[in-house]
Amino acid sequence: MVVKLTISYDGTDYAGWQVQDNGVTVQQVVETALYTLTGQNIRITGSGRTDAGVHAVGQVATFSVNATIPASAYAKALNTYLPKNIRVLSSTEVPDGFNARFSAKRKTYGYRLYLSNTEIPVKDRFAVRVDSLDESLLKQAFAVIKGKHDFKGFSATGSSVVDTVRTVYSIKLKKVDGFYEIQISGNGFLYKMVRFIVGGLLAVSDKKISIDDLRQVLNGAKRPNAIKAMPAKGLTLLSVEYKN
Amino acid sequence: MVVKLTISYDGTDYAGWQVQDNGVTVQQVVETALYTLTGQNIRITGSGRTDAGVHAVGQVATFSVNATIPASAYAKALNTYLPKNIRVLSSTEVPDGFNARFSAKRKTYGYRLYLSNTEIPVKDRFAVRVDSLDESLLKQAFAVIKGKHDFKGFSATGSSVVDTVRTVYSIKLKKVDGFYEIQISGNGFLYKMVRFIVGGLLAVSDKKISIDDLRQVLNGAKRPNAIKAMPAKGLTLLSVEYKN
Repeated sequence: MVVKLTISYDGTDYAGWQVQDNGVTVQQVVETALYTLTGQNIRITGSGRTDAGVHAVGQVATFSVNATIPASAYAKALNTYLPKNIRVLSSTEVPDGFNARFSAKRKTYGYRLYLSNTEIPVKDRFAVRVDSLDESLLKQAFAVIKGKHDFKGFSATGSSVVDTVRTVYSIKLKKVDGFYEIQISGNGFLYKMVRFIVGGLLAVSDKKISIDDLRQVLNGAKRPNAIKAMPAKGLTLLSVEYKN
Repeated sequence: MVVKLTISYDGTDYAGWQVQDNGVTVQQVVETALYTLTGQNIRITGSGRTDAGVHAVGQVATFSVNATIPASAYAKALNTYLPKNIRVLSSTEVPDGFNARFSAKRKTYGYRLYLSNTEIPVKDRFAVRVDSLDESLLKQAFAVIKGKHDFKGFSATGSSVVDTVRTVYSIKLKKVDGFYEIQISGNGFLYKMVRFIVGGLLAVSDKKISIDDLRQVLNGAKRPNAIKAMPAKGLTLLSVEYKN
């Protein structure tokens, strides 16, 4: 059977989702827990990589396994072997052929900011401090980012991805409990794409670049130096949606 | 001159506020930063102790010093020597005789809970998971806690405090961004008092004790075993108010 896990993690101490050589990753820790539980080496597939330091409340992963343990029992069983900063929120059986990565239709990320002239330690683990935020300029910039574009200029170099066209279905600003959260949904995201988009939005808000400069990057212009990739710690994968 | 600091900290890795032998405390780290900055051994006075693992967004501390550095410059200067999990949010000069502890009139704590059947790592650092919450019962229990009472039954043994009468000015439930925050203001709090009060409120919400059981503890009855001190990590000192 194929089992689908919904996973939340505090990414602070992990080298991202995907198994790699330099550092412990979330995928690796979940696979180790699966091995401890089942005695089998099972490879899991995540909906996508999250970078080092990025958090998740709704990462999705799938794996194939013999039906000795009911699918719904995996969540609780895995949590007994996982460290506290990774929790499986639910586990369900899905149809054969369902794949967390290739079946994904829409992902939503949240990037948290807070206004302060000094870092506030109880806010700073999952968010990034900013001096100011121009909500009106942000909303104008959202209209530029939304839609189907070549987001190459909003991604980090070094990626092997060839097709850099992605569709942003929605982008909005939500105020929650002293935080500003930029929520962005799309059919997929390039390496560091959300962090570069937020960097671009903040460059507009700070009047370091114009709305038109932002538009030009989507049209193939070189990314201005004022657009930085924002720190990983402010970014959280909120949800992954699948058809049906 | 006397300098008043407003301090925020992520208390997770500290053995509380007050200097002690077993573990690094926030007071100690701030005093070390003050020594590095001024070359003087300066003792600071906090508005009160926060226990090991408790956080703050508005702890207040005062100290006396020669007026070589302007009071307002201490915040930024100290932050260059402090670890990221402690930040001085502001520093101001206050009148001689002002003392962070003895001049305090009102303190407000927040205790954060979230509803889930599994811990959610991105919520769990500053809050505690609960299975359910009966808002109607909670609000009835608030009415019992509010006011001037002997809170001895809601404090940990081992404290040297003789007078255990305190006044709770207000206690309310605030819903913020997927969290429930119990906010409690009073003229002072005994050792672990907020954590025992929240434990009592949750015992009522879970129907392990009645509202009247709660009232009986305030009237001197032995604390039922169902009332536990809640974990430190959910507790944050929000603000300290002074007359002026």
